[in-house]
Amino acid sequence: MRSVRATERRGAVIDGKSIAGQIRKEIAAEVANLKESFGKVPGLAVVLVGTRKDSETYVRSKKKACEEVGFASFGVTLPEDSTQEDVLNHVKQFNDDPAVHGILVQLPLPKHINEEAVLGAVSYEKDVDGFHPINVGTLCMQGRKPLFVSCTPRGCIELLVRSGVQMKGKRAVVIGRSNIVGTPAAQLLQRQNATVTVVHSATPNPAEIVREADIVIAAVGKAEMVRGDWLKPGAVVIDVGINAVDDPSTKKGYRLVGDVNYAEASEVASMITPVPGGVGPMTIAMLLSNTLDAAKRSFGVES
Amino acid sequence: MRSVRATERRGAVIDGKSIAGQIRKEIAAEVANLKESFGKVPGLAVVLVGTRKDSETYVRSKKKACEEVGFASFGVTLPEDSTQEDVLNHVKQFNDDPAVHGILVQLPLPKHINEEAVLGAVSYEKDVDGFHPINVGTLCMQGRKPLFVSCTPRGCIELLVRSGVQMKGKRAVVIGRSNIVGTPAAQLLQRQNATVTVVHSATPNPAEIVREADIVIAAVGKAEMVRGDWLKPGAVVIDVGINAVDDPSTKKGYRLVGDVNYAEASEVASMITPVPGGVGPMTIAMLLSNTLDAAKRSFGVES
Repeated sequence: MRSVRATERRGAVIDGKSIAGQIRKEIAAEVANLKESFGKVPGLAVVLVGTRKDSETYVRSKKKACEEVGFASFGVTLPEDSTQEDVLNHVKQFNDDPAVHGILVQLPLPKHINEEAVLGAVSYEKDVDGFHPINVGTLCMQGRKPLFVSCTPRGCIELLVRSGVQMKGKRAVVIGRSNIVGTPAAQLLQRQNATVTVVHSATPNPAEIVREADIVIAAVGKAEMVRGDWLKPGAVVIDVGINAVDDPSTKKGYRLVGDVNYAEASEVASMITPVPGGVGPMTIAMLLSNTLDAAKRSFGVES
Repeated sequence: MRSVRATERRGAVIDGKSIAGQIRKEIAAEVANLKESFGKVPGLAVVLVGTRKDSETYVRSKKKACEEVGFASFGVTLPEDSTQEDVLNHVKQFNDDPAVHGILVQLPLPKHINEEAVLGAVSYEKDVDGFHPINVGTLCMQGRKPLFVSCTPRGCIELLVRSGVQMKGKRAVVIGRSNIVGTPAAQLLQRQNATVTVVHSATPNPAEIVREADIVIAAVGKAEMVRGDWLKPGAVVIDVGINAVDDPSTKKGYRLVGDVNYAEASEVASMITPVPGGVGPMTIAMLLSNTLDAAKRSFGVES
C-alpha cells in the first residue's frame, strides 16, 4: 500500500507558455467574431520614448502579439530628448482616437520626463496597464470593479484559476509590495477570498511568514531568495521574478532565474511556475485581454 | 526578584477621547493662525438627505466640532424624496465654492439615490472622507500620497503613533476588509512598514491568525468577537467596533461594546482602546484634520 504522502503531487509545473498560448487563441477567436459583427477590431497604441534596446524589444514583441491575434497596432517612437509636452500630446491624441482602445506607455521614460504626469494623462478608460489611480482604487474597493488590472498580477491569478487552485479560505503570501505586481496581486488574491499577508523589505522574518502560506506569489526581484525550506509542503508557488545571474557555462554568460530557488522549491511545492516560461508569457496575454475588454466596452459588448 | 513577565504592562488604556481632544486643540490653534495670516478659515460642508435620526445626530455633532475649532460650517439638508440630480447639484455647488474646503455626504443615502454616483461627484480635492477612488488608489501606491485618507482608519494609526507604538517590522492583523475602515487601515499599517494580514469573513481560522499579531485592528462589526485567547500576550489592540447589545440593567436597555471582548482582552493585551471612548472620538478629529489640510493646500501652506 502506498503512503498518503507518496500520492501527493510535488513540483507539478504550471506551464505559463502553454496557458498564455491558449488565452491568445481565445482572444484571436473573439477578435474574428468582433470583426464579423462590427467590422472593427481592438486597437492598442504603444508610446516609446528613446532608444533603449530592452524597451525596443518589448515594444516589438507587444506589436507582434497584437498582430497575431488580429488587433490593430498603433505606435509612436519619440526621440530621447522629447519634451514632456511632446509626450503628453501624443498620449492625448491616442486618448481622442476612437480606433485606439488601449494605450501603453513603455517604461522607463527618460529621466527628464515626469512618469506620474504621463501615466496620469492616459485616459483611465484606455489604461490597459492598470496603472491609473482610479483603476488601482476601484481594484481595492469592495463593490467596485476596475476597468483594468495590471497585467502581470492578473496573469498570476489567471494561472492559479486555470490550474484549478482554490484560493477561497486559503492563506496567501505575496512577497513584494510594488505598484505593478505585489500590491495588485494581494488585492486580487483577497478578491478571491484568500487571507493575504504582504511580506516586504521591512519584514524581519520572511521565511517564517512564507511558510504559513498555501499560495505564494514572489515578486521581489531577488534571485532565488525563496528557498525550499521557506515553503509549506504542498504550497502553490507563482514566481514573478526574472533575474539574470552570471553563468560562464552559457553562451550569453548569464542565465535567468526567478525569485524562488526552483530546484529546491519544486521538491516541496505541489505546483510551481518555471522561470522563464511561467508568469512572463502571461503578461502580454493579459495586455491583449485588457485591450480586448476595452474594445468590447467601446463596441457595447458585455465582457 | 520579580519575574520579567510581571514587569510587562497589561491592559493600558489608549484614551481616544483625550488624544482626540488634544488633536482638536492643535487644530484650533492652527485655525487661529490661519485666520490671522490669511483672514480665512477652513470650511466644511455636509450634505444630508432625509431625516434619519442617527444621521441628524452625526451631522449635528460634526457641525458642533467644526464650530469648536473655528471652522466655517456649511450644510444643506435635502428632503428624503430629492432626486439624484438635486443631490448632485448641491455637491457641485460646494465643489465650486472656494470657501468650502471639505465636502461630506452623510451616509446612508436614500435607496433611490446612487451612492457611487454621488460620492464620485465630490471633487477628490475636497474628499475629506477619503472615499474617492483616486484617493484610495494613491493610498495604495508606493511613491504617491493621497490627498485624504478615510477618517476612522487614519484615527487608528494616529492612536498608535501618539501611544508610541512601533509599527515597523511588526506583524499586524486587520479584521475586516471594508472600504471605509479595514482596507485603508491595512494600507496605512503597511505604509508604516508593518507586515499586514487581512482577516475577513472567508477566513476559516481567524483566532489562529490574530494570535500571530503584535498589533490588531478589529473592524468587523461583531460584538465581542475577538476573545482574550485570540491575542498574543502583549499585543496592542485597536477596537473599531461599536455594537449595541441588549442590557436590561441599563436605562436605555442596551450598552455599547466593541468587536473585542474588553474584559478578557485587557488581561492579555499590553494596550487597548476602550469602547466607547477609543477610536470613536478620533473619527471626527481626523475629519477636522483632513479639512484643515485641504484648507492649507488651498491657502498654499505646507502641511
